[in-house]
Amino acid sequence: MNGADMLCDVLLVNGVDVCFANPGTSEMHFVAALDRKPEMRCVLGLSEGVVTGAADGYARMADKPAATLLHTGPGLANGLANLHNARRARTPMVNVVGDHASYHLQYDAPLTSDIESLARPMSHWVGRIDGSADVRTKTEEAYIESLMRRGVSTMILPADAAWGEVAPEALSSVVLPARPAISGAALSAAAAALRSGKRTVIILAGRALRANALETAGRISAATGAALFSQTSDRTERGAGRVAARPVPYNVDQAVEALREFEVAICVGGKQPVGFFAYPGKPSTMLQPGCEIIELAGHENDLAEALGALAEEIGLRKDSPFVPSRFAQRDIAVPTGALNADSISIAVARALPDNAIICEESITSGGRLAALAPGLTPHDHIPLTGGAIGEGIPLAVGAGVACPDRKIIAMQADGSGMYTVQGLWTQARENLDVVTVILSNRAYAILQGEMRNVGVNNFGRNARRMLDLDSPELDWCSLARGMGVEAARADTIEQFTDLFDAALSRKGPFLIEARI
Amino acid sequence: MNGADMLCDVLLVNGVDVCFANPGTSEMHFVAALDRKPEMRCVLGLSEGVVTGAADGYARMADKPAATLLHTGPGLANGLANLHNARRARTPMVNVVGDHASYHLQYDAPLTSDIESLARPMSHWVGRIDGSADVRTKTEEAYIESLMRRGVSTMILPADAAWGEVAPEALSSVVLPARPAISGAALSAAAAALRSGKRTVIILAGRALRANALETAGRISAATGAALFSQTSDRTERGAGRVAARPVPYNVDQAVEALREFEVAICVGGKQPVGFFAYPGKPSTMLQPGCEIIELAGHENDLAEALGALAEEIGLRKDSPFVPSRFAQRDIAVPTGALNADSISIAVARALPDNAIICEESITSGGRLAALAPGLTPHDHIPLTGGAIGEGIPLAVGAGVACPDRKIIAMQADGSGMYTVQGLWTQARENLDVVTVILSNRAYAILQGEMRNVGVNNFGRNARRMLDLDSPELDWCSLARGMGVEAARADTIEQFTDLFDAALSRKGPFLIEARI
Repeated sequence: MNGADMLCDVLLVNGVDVCFANPGTSEMHFVAALDRKPEMRCVLGLSEGVVTGAADGYARMADKPAATLLHTGPGLANGLANLHNARRARTPMVNVVGDHASYHLQYDAPLTSDIESLARPMSHWVGRIDGSADVRTKTEEAYIESLMRRGVSTMILPADAAWGEVAPEALSSVVLPARPAISGAALSAAAAALRSGKRTVIILAGRALRANALETAGRISAATGAALFSQTSDRTERGAGRVAARPVPYNVDQAVEALREFEVAICVGGKQPVGFFAYPGKPSTMLQPGCEIIELAGHENDLAEALGALAEEIGLRKDSPFVPSRFAQRDIAVPTGALNADSISIAVARALPDNAIICEESITSGGRLAALAPGLTPHDHIPLTGGAIGEGIPLAVGAGVACPDRKIIAMQADGSGMYTVQGLWTQARENLDVVTVILSNRAYAILQGEMRNVGVNNFGRNARRMLDLDSPELDWCSLARGMGVEAARADTIEQFTDLFDAALSRKGPFLIEARI
Repeated sequence: MNGADMLCDVLLVNGVDVCFANPGTSEMHFVAALDRKPEMRCVLGLSEGVVTGAADGYARMADKPAATLLHTGPGLANGLANLHNARRARTPMVNVVGDHASYHLQYDAPLTSDIESLARPMSHWVGRIDGSADVRTKTEEAYIESLMRRGVSTMILPADAAWGEVAPEALSSVVLPARPAISGAALSAAAAALRSGKRTVIILAGRALRANALETAGRISAATGAALFSQTSDRTERGAGRVAARPVPYNVDQAVEALREFEVAICVGGKQPVGFFAYPGKPSTMLQPGCEIIELAGHENDLAEALGALAEEIGLRKDSPFVPSRFAQRDIAVPTGALNADSISIAVARALPDNAIICEESITSGGRLAALAPGLTPHDHIPLTGGAIGEGIPLAVGAGVACPDRKIIAMQADGSGMYTVQGLWTQARENLDVVTVILSNRAYAILQGEMRNVGVNNFGRNARRMLDLDSPELDWCSLARGMGVEAARADTIEQFTDLFDAALSRKGPFLIEARI
């Protein structure tokens, strides 16, 4: 066997059995090895942004890493934007980046580049395999680091490490170390704050937004009056019967206003909320300057356990009450009037099937979906995390591969959707059960708003040419059909509602172009 | 005025008047400044691979840099693969990458990343503007470096440097320093080799492949018997009346065979040819081990002047004869038989209009075009340089913006075309005169060949799933129409010939899906 076989075997014995791939010549021995492992599911993306975004979506739903297969520095580079999102989502992932044979690097062949320098900004761990004898150790390390740090491992596989012979070994799955304990001082401080009567907010992120952790946070909130807020994270388990945390607003002024009253903030799974961008004369952080900030636990901790420890520290019984969200989906009326972000979100909310997964990159077109979510049937919400647009379609690919029995609803803005539109082809090829709703406003609408924020209200030709997506208008149905995905267009809310209901009643990918 | 205004003014006074762009929030002040400068042409790309690839194609044809506008680390990352190609093409380019306000970086907001680490592998110069007072100096430096190094300058523009006030100044274009002189020792060695009677090859790259430099190389060749070879470069001026240099083959065995006889190699504009990839048991370099290598001049030198100096050193008169390529286009018969790479290339060659620009990313489907090129009407050839596929469609965008009065023929493989398919939209919006020929073989055919090279002839499911582009097949006409580009499909060579002739007879973008 060769190094590439060993790499596959180490992944498989540890349960990594999906590889999102876009290979090149330097990975041919790895491809040949994958071809000898039918238990590995190889999913092709027609651009690397699809590959890495799909791996992100997969791991968010499967709770285990996928592998990716990327071709040298440029292949990695094409995937970096969605690795950035995965890094911000703290998604476990094992990237395998092929490189030239080690002895060939000195000649600076055309595809040579500094892969480490490219990988580091978007990875939590970067390693280069040092010959075929190093494959097992490095692959195990990449896998362990992806899980323990909750993040992106990027492993560089030189071609000669892939094709070099290795002796077969009996492999077994690695034993993960225990997660680090949370700080006793932080726990005491958080408990003291909750007992103090000070106005306290618990700001949840990452795995603190899963149903069980939210329930514990809900019990703390019910007992102490602490408010619950959430930060944009990998995955939120939402819906009726669960505890809802209020998202920190994206808009700086609104975020500051929402958090103005609090004297203490207990952060679980992240740091204090900061502005997505800086604006002249506005603050970078959202909490009031005097607010005490307690970082109870970070991503590396077990966040459900951390919240449990806090509940115990303030003396709550395990069955102390919480306030679950009330089921209100049945009360949502059929939307009428104009086709716009609000009416579409109402139609989607109203018809949302049980146990759906909402992939969200709706940007300015989210409408009322977030507000309605707590009253809907339980579902998962996996949004864009790092602000690098072009994640929505690939996220749906990954979620669809991870959860073949669940309906995926992808709420997709048009501008961001174009970045990785190639992902529709993978949805068709893998026959994934994804309904993509294109919220087509023919503009980078968020940037038009930001231009107004900087005082420009009358756009000249250059601004219009950079912020409008018209002339020509994109025909999303034609794009989708070009990649084998059935599609239809809605110009009215009635058409949209009919199409959405029809899409839910069938299996397989379908795209609705909603012209808002 | 603010820093962003100053940045625009410095670019404009130096003749940089095209900005390929995909902006984001942190660049809004720069967008607003561009909006105040109608003399700057802003061209939107719907993904950053289009932006950087178009800037590459533009500069190859305009012989001056374009600016790009990219949004933070992920926006840059999306453009890196084509920056890699531009780096290998030694294309002058001034990237402007927006970043957070300097004081905001400490908060690690979601879009924060290490932009310098991302930029360095694909840039010849990287700089960060240190406040609005630094805008003029840094922008001039970025511009000068792009021209003197012939390469990619990447300049990071913090939002507060863009919005900060600066005092207006009288600006004038920078004075470029003289190009460095070539080494006298190398010149003497090259002249001695040519006089020695040893079997000598002159290997040309970069601007040594422009018509005037080629003519000088042709005079040297005619006088001394030295062979002329070319390496893949930014732009080759080809066709009848010009001097043709033989491309070093991509295939290692063929390259070694083609260069086997030579005792001396004189490299002009590059280093010795090396294998694109390494293969077990095959050499990394293409010249024979004992071959003397003389690097006469590099990209930083004036290559036409270097060849002129060599001609003078061996005593040639300026009017010494050379062997121009003979015009043979009229002799090409109408192709018949199967629709395949060969018949398509014959149809294209036969109908090639005067002064056309061929953008080439045909990969395995180049057919006979390179072989026929010396006999065709004079034209430019701008190919994929760095092996990072997804450059063809954007190259055509850039060439079309640079040369609105010339016909662009884009020979495009399907697998690589999908990487930056979004560029078709820009072709439609800017009404560029581009005929795109999609050589649709529904496969990563080059990788299927490479798999056979590593000894795998029977592909299993995983290999087929990663190397075939079928199920579903891409419908390129539907994709093109979805982005506003007229398109038609050819299943026979007769259909192709008719479509190609029709496409040449009209202006504006047109796509032919040739199913080979």
